[in-house]
Amino acid sequence: MTKWVYSFGGGIADGGADMRDLLGGKGANLAEMSSLGLLVPPGFTITTEACTHFTAHSAYPDDLADQVTAALSRVEDELGVRFGDPEDPLLVSVRSGARASMPGMMDTVLNLGLNDETVNGLARKSGDRRFAYDSYRRFIQMFGDVVLGVDHHKFEEILDLHKEDNGHGLDTDLTAEDWEAVIADYKARVVDETGAPFPQDPMDQARAAIAAVFGSWMNKRAVTYRKLHAIPEDWGTAVNVQAMVFGNMGDDCATGVAFTRNPSTGENAFYGEYLVNAQGEDVVAGIRTPQHLTVRGREENHSGLPSMEEVMPEVFGQLLEVRRTLERHYRDMQDIEFTVQRGTLYMLQTRSGKRTAAAALKIAADMVDEGLIDEAEAVCRINPSSLDQLLHPTLDPDAERHLIARGLPASPGAASGRLVFSSDDAEAQAMAGNKVILCRIETSPEDIHGMHAAQGILTTRGGMTSHAAVVARGMGRPCVAGAADLRIDYASGVMRVLDSELKDGDVITIDGSTGEVMLGEVKTIQPELSGDFARVMGWADGVRTMRVRANADTPGDCRTARDFGAEGIGLCRTEHMFFDAGRIVAVREMILADGPEGRRKALDKILPMQRQDFVEIFRIMAGLPVTIRLLDPPLHEFLPQEEAAVAEVAEATGMAVEQVRARALRLAEVNPMLGHRGCRLAITYPEIYEMQVRAIFEAAAQVAREDGGRVQPEVMIPLIAMRKELKILRALVDRVAAEVMAAEGVEIAYEVGTMIELPRACLRAGEIAEEADFFSFGTNDLTQTTYGLSRDDAANFLGAYEERGIIDQDPFISLDAKGVGELVALAVERGRKTRPGLHLGICGEHGGDPVSIAHCQTFGLDYVSCSPFRVPIARLAAAQAAITAKG
Amino acid sequence: MTKWVYSFGGGIADGGADMRDLLGGKGANLAEMSSLGLLVPPGFTITTEACTHFTAHSAYPDDLADQVTAALSRVEDELGVRFGDPEDPLLVSVRSGARASMPGMMDTVLNLGLNDETVNGLARKSGDRRFAYDSYRRFIQMFGDVVLGVDHHKFEEILDLHKEDNGHGLDTDLTAEDWEAVIADYKARVVDETGAPFPQDPMDQARAAIAAVFGSWMNKRAVTYRKLHAIPEDWGTAVNVQAMVFGNMGDDCATGVAFTRNPSTGENAFYGEYLVNAQGEDVVAGIRTPQHLTVRGREENHSGLPSMEEVMPEVFGQLLEVRRTLERHYRDMQDIEFTVQRGTLYMLQTRSGKRTAAAALKIAADMVDEGLIDEAEAVCRINPSSLDQLLHPTLDPDAERHLIARGLPASPGAASGRLVFSSDDAEAQAMAGNKVILCRIETSPEDIHGMHAAQGILTTRGGMTSHAAVVARGMGRPCVAGAADLRIDYASGVMRVLDSELKDGDVITIDGSTGEVMLGEVKTIQPELSGDFARVMGWADGVRTMRVRANADTPGDCRTARDFGAEGIGLCRTEHMFFDAGRIVAVREMILADGPEGRRKALDKILPMQRQDFVEIFRIMAGLPVTIRLLDPPLHEFLPQEEAAVAEVAEATGMAVEQVRARALRLAEVNPMLGHRGCRLAITYPEIYEMQVRAIFEAAAQVAREDGGRVQPEVMIPLIAMRKELKILRALVDRVAAEVMAAEGVEIAYEVGTMIELPRACLRAGEIAEEADFFSFGTNDLTQTTYGLSRDDAANFLGAYEERGIIDQDPFISLDAKGVGELVALAVERGRKTRPGLHLGICGEHGGDPVSIAHCQTFGLDYVSCSPFRVPIARLAAAQAAITAKG
Repeated sequence: MTKWVYSFGGGIADGGADMRDLLGGKGANLAEMSSLGLLVPPGFTITTEACTHFTAHSAYPDDLADQVTAALSRVEDELGVRFGDPEDPLLVSVRSGARASMPGMMDTVLNLGLNDETVNGLARKSGDRRFAYDSYRRFIQMFGDVVLGVDHHKFEEILDLHKEDNGHGLDTDLTAEDWEAVIADYKARVVDETGAPFPQDPMDQARAAIAAVFGSWMNKRAVTYRKLHAIPEDWGTAVNVQAMVFGNMGDDCATGVAFTRNPSTGENAFYGEYLVNAQGEDVVAGIRTPQHLTVRGREENHSGLPSMEEVMPEVFGQLLEVRRTLERHYRDMQDIEFTVQRGTLYMLQTRSGKRTAAAALKIAADMVDEGLIDEAEAVCRINPSSLDQLLHPTLDPDAERHLIARGLPASPGAASGRLVFSSDDAEAQAMAGNKVILCRIETSPEDIHGMHAAQGILTTRGGMTSHAAVVARGMGRPCVAGAADLRIDYASGVMRVLDSELKDGDVITIDGSTGEVMLGEVKTIQPELSGDFARVMGWADGVRTMRVRANADTPGDCRTARDFGAEGIGLCRTEHMFFDAGRIVAVREMILADGPEGRRKALDKILPMQRQDFVEIFRIMAGLPVTIRLLDPPLHEFLPQEEAAVAEVAEATGMAVEQVRARALRLAEVNPMLGHRGCRLAITYPEIYEMQVRAIFEAAAQVAREDGGRVQPEVMIPLIAMRKELKILRALVDRVAAEVMAAEGVEIAYEVGTMIELPRACLRAGEIAEEADFFSFGTNDLTQTTYGLSRDDAANFLGAYEERGIIDQDPFISLDAKGVGELVALAVERGRKTRPGLHLGICGEHGGDPVSIAHCQTFGLDYVSCSPFRVPIARLAAAQAAITAKG
Repeated sequence: MTKWVYSFGGGIADGGADMRDLLGGKGANLAEMSSLGLLVPPGFTITTEACTHFTAHSAYPDDLADQVTAALSRVEDELGVRFGDPEDPLLVSVRSGARASMPGMMDTVLNLGLNDETVNGLARKSGDRRFAYDSYRRFIQMFGDVVLGVDHHKFEEILDLHKEDNGHGLDTDLTAEDWEAVIADYKARVVDETGAPFPQDPMDQARAAIAAVFGSWMNKRAVTYRKLHAIPEDWGTAVNVQAMVFGNMGDDCATGVAFTRNPSTGENAFYGEYLVNAQGEDVVAGIRTPQHLTVRGREENHSGLPSMEEVMPEVFGQLLEVRRTLERHYRDMQDIEFTVQRGTLYMLQTRSGKRTAAAALKIAADMVDEGLIDEAEAVCRINPSSLDQLLHPTLDPDAERHLIARGLPASPGAASGRLVFSSDDAEAQAMAGNKVILCRIETSPEDIHGMHAAQGILTTRGGMTSHAAVVARGMGRPCVAGAADLRIDYASGVMRVLDSELKDGDVITIDGSTGEVMLGEVKTIQPELSGDFARVMGWADGVRTMRVRANADTPGDCRTARDFGAEGIGLCRTEHMFFDAGRIVAVREMILADGPEGRRKALDKILPMQRQDFVEIFRIMAGLPVTIRLLDPPLHEFLPQEEAAVAEVAEATGMAVEQVRARALRLAEVNPMLGHRGCRLAITYPEIYEMQVRAIFEAAAQVAREDGGRVQPEVMIPLIAMRKELKILRALVDRVAAEVMAAEGVEIAYEVGTMIELPRACLRAGEIAEEADFFSFGTNDLTQTTYGLSRDDAANFLGAYEERGIIDQDPFISLDAKGVGELVALAVERGRKTRPGLHLGICGEHGGDPVSIAHCQTFGLDYVSCSPFRVPIARLAAAQAAITAKG
């Protein structure tokens, strides 16, 4: 016989906290509290399996009714009252309770067991007729709505009419007699609407209410919520039937909610609110001002209302004991609900409390000190993504804000500055010492210098993976992307929103963590990364097995990366260096040259600058590995689009404007992502990579000769699809490196490897590994090619895909483990088979995503690399992955 | 002990034709002829393994010298002459002979064994001193060049000087005494150059010559040739040492080459040429006019020179006998070389003869009739690709041609017509009954109607896989692509080439099989597909296990496909239908519409036209399966680029020009190949597929109701990456199909499936198969995504890739078995595991490539689908693949 019903309360419990799947969160914790000896109103939980059965068959399991009856008898025995007893009736609540919290999505019935007779028993027992009749009419209304399908406004009509007829303003004006009259009308309305009288048999009421709660699992609200939160339909909900206790039977009654520690700061101080003579809803609803639990809370909040510590010292003492018991037991900060009925403390709920990132760190660190948890457990307690809150300036929560628009939270942090509409302007203003926010319809690689110069970036078009978003995250610049309500008119230097107009130079503030755009300057708070943060990160570093590197292209980014604990550079893109104002002309000259000779001449101009880039980076990284990716984008990306720039290039190169335009047209590609780029450039124009490799090794030699200078360059060839490509280019790297080392008289240890970013490279990893010292998975491009999905164009339909539930998450944000992941796993296996010592890492955006990092651990990678600002997140996520892997 | 040396001749042979790998082609066949009892000058073959040993160690194997000495003794015994005998010396040739023919790439030494003494013996024996000394000086020159490294022009200088001094114009003017003098100078030059006298010991000569021929395997010429023909280096070459016979010892001597059947027509008639008193080189060199072997040959060619049949009837009779013997034995047409020395016929070479496609068919069919081979063997004898020669009009070989330019042979066949520079013009002229050649810089989907209307297409830009090339092959139109010397000026309607100018309306001829562009009309010959062709294809159809379908979008193409034996349509693209002049306006209206309602209104206009397309196709295909792919390209491909067209659209849709342009801009994509296309269109705009499915099933219902009407529609959803995409769209297809069938009262059996064209679809094939009745591998896009390689842009660097040996073949032409192929194999395995009855086919361009078709057999596909004109090629290739698979 299947056990459908689990009892709890009165010192016994059939279930426990580990039975969350079967009993739901609420039921499992009620059972757990009972086992702990806490006073929980007795009751029972009907399992999620019964719900699943009910959903499938639209009927209860055969033996459920008997089990419910038995469990109810136990409650009656426990409390010494009977269900339906006109003298002293047992009343129960019937509540849903799913495996995952789905607040307010499903139905609840309170005060069940009341009828025309038992209401009088309740009146006598409570000594309060008005309370009893109010409870009854609430029950009719709730049951009517939830179980009988009589819309609640049909009841409210009656109530309003009654108040009007009798000149009552508030519900509290109504007397017991008033409520009796309302009840009569309610019951009549039920007959009108349903053709049957309001059920008087408490067992009938219970059966119907349980069925209704099960049924609410499939209501529209719940279905939508589950879709949004990826909760499977077949989980079902449990139903908790529990004896009612009342916090509103007089001044020796109360109800409250509390956190066992401060959820905002994490401080180990009891933190909560309560109301005397009130019901649970009253605390939440905000009709009355709640009072603080503790004297300290009252004082800190300058409240004139007395604390529970003062009003009910004895009960408060019990509550402190409960707090201690729960924390010892759950070894985590708890969010609890309680009711005091006539001086007796009843626990109604406990669960892990939500908290800020700062609180999470403090709680975890404190609990280690308190001996409650070990360091590994502390590491696992922090949601890595939540650290983002701590790593960027945030808006002062107390500052006033004038919201004017909203976009996507594309790169976290807050920033204020003057509006500028061009990157050149941004750079000029920044040079002049002004803080600016760069506003563009969308950004392109030509905007890199402006994005660098700006405090933050705002675009009116583009998604979470648009150029602006990706680059801003990489730079650690706050960014709000795709704020579609804003209309930029470059020509007149104006940005319109609704009916107002902002001009070049007007100050705005953006919050890249929320997507908000505000007028004027809003005060921000700088992050603080010592203390608990540093302690927990230290534990994380001690336990993780994967290294964490950063994707960084500039000395500034490299410094940030080291500050955040990066153990090397996993991806140093060299193309951003090409866009620098001082070089782009020479770069364009190179691109427009007719043959290798012309290209070499232009490259000779770039060489010293490129060398200097690497010198600074090697110095900062001080012997840590630096993976430098040779030029990757198609050459046409460097050519100017606008007329003025074309003319400038023509002048600089001595070509006719028409020639420049014709050459640009010849270089244009239908699908640049799949075009003449990466190693393909070097197969056709080897002189480009030759210059870059020369710059790398000349820089390395220079730094190696400095006092204590150490360098560890790793040269990475992008877009390899075939072994032979790498064989040829590896030979080029080795040759130039040997030349430089011979000329400089310095020996430098280096590695040559490749980005694995094409499906074919994954499939042929076995032979490609023969030419590579390392693989770095470029999962951005690998995702694009595996899905056949252009990141730049996907915004047009990925929204529809998420809405229709075709994808759970943007595969550019969280690695597609089943598709892309299989290719990565395959490449790891085949690569290591050929070359057991092959170094393996990931340098796509996924390297900073905690879920993807867990996959990387499974794949067996040696390191992940992510944008500097995500390094702490990655360190923590890698630690959690290592702990999970250990099992 | 390893056997390094294999003797042949004199009725014995250590080796045979099946030992080609070890003995090379020449050596194996010399041995085989010996075994057959044919008179072969005795000799021996030193194995390719000895060469490999020599290459690896730069030295002979230890026991090789003894084996060579022993083999040489056998030759001496056989002929009764001795190596180095001053009275009657044995002379030998030393020739290379690799596994694959590498004509002229490696070295040869003739007349080896001559020295200052033996030359007199040769003079006596031949009775011709001049002949003997000429032979000796030839030997010194050849040996000096090949073995001693004295450049041959150093000898020619001497000869020229001597001729000048003695007033001789031609070599033939020189007397025996002249040659003696030249020889003295030659020997002196050898001493000057090498510091040692010319070797006089024949055994020393032989050892050195053998080493030199082995060494020539690694010479630059040979290395390059092997690279170009993908011949592995480790094959090595064999060396054949063979007694010399002379066809130039008098009028009872002769030398010749012959084919055992006519290599041009395949006719079973002896076919060859000979020269009396001449050496083998003379026939090939063309210094003397060769004579025909047979009387019939002489007569047919109106030759005044007597045939061998007349001059040497006895020897000719022997040769006829040899011909019969070889054909019986090899069961194939042979290409032979022979020498007659003093009335004795010696066979020097036999090998399978090269032949035209027509000859190959006739020979194969005849040999089946003659009982020489069976039908399967006949099928395997035809190179499938060679059939292309037969399926298109070809230029009359006798017609005069005025070549003006050359491009890529992009689509086979020859065509003549008036020059037109626009597709509209092409259509207008074609309507007026004129034949036209459409000349464009490059073509786009907007040119489809013009390409259809034209006899042939000529472009000045683009490669073998450019739009023009792919579409032309699909349509069976001849096409020359990328004729870069031509410059088209659309504005003035002129095409320039070098210094001349062609105008709109001038007649040109193109040959898509060679890439030639000619002035004026050149006569063409129409293909003939009955007779031997039909017989061999019938046998092929009998043996193959894969079906062959065609990729066809129009009724015309479908008819061609059936004529060529297609067993269904594997890919009916619906987008070409959208470009039709009568519909494109409605299509654009649909694209520019603001919401589903606007789109539906426009789609309603397209529905009846689309339905009519399918009605005709279903009628022609008469119950054969027709796989219809729903709309695939991104919508912006349908929007006009040119100003005039934009204005036209604006007028037709009632939108402002600016609006049209803005909408087009919004639809533009960075990487359209990876963009909003395929099933993604249908997820966002389901009404498009709804219209198409409605059109398909309404058409199917209409044809099904006709007399004997049968239909077998297969609806194919493109670009699936995720199971859920297909689940949603399959539901759409099923729903609309059910609606139509209910409304029409007809039941139609149909299938719904998907194109597998993305790496992720291959990886997830197991779950995708749950929603699919069939998979059709779209290997074009699968190649693009697996390699990260845009077909449209690859021309910029694929040339360099082929040159540098990075790829052997364009992966868009021949399926990349190691990369793309692994994904296909994986998808087949996973798909069939889920759904054992899953139908599997290929509809990429590879479906018409014989090598790829062989892979498809290995993958276990049910059918291949290719352009109509390649259907016979595919039928034959599939048959060969089936025969190979049977083993």
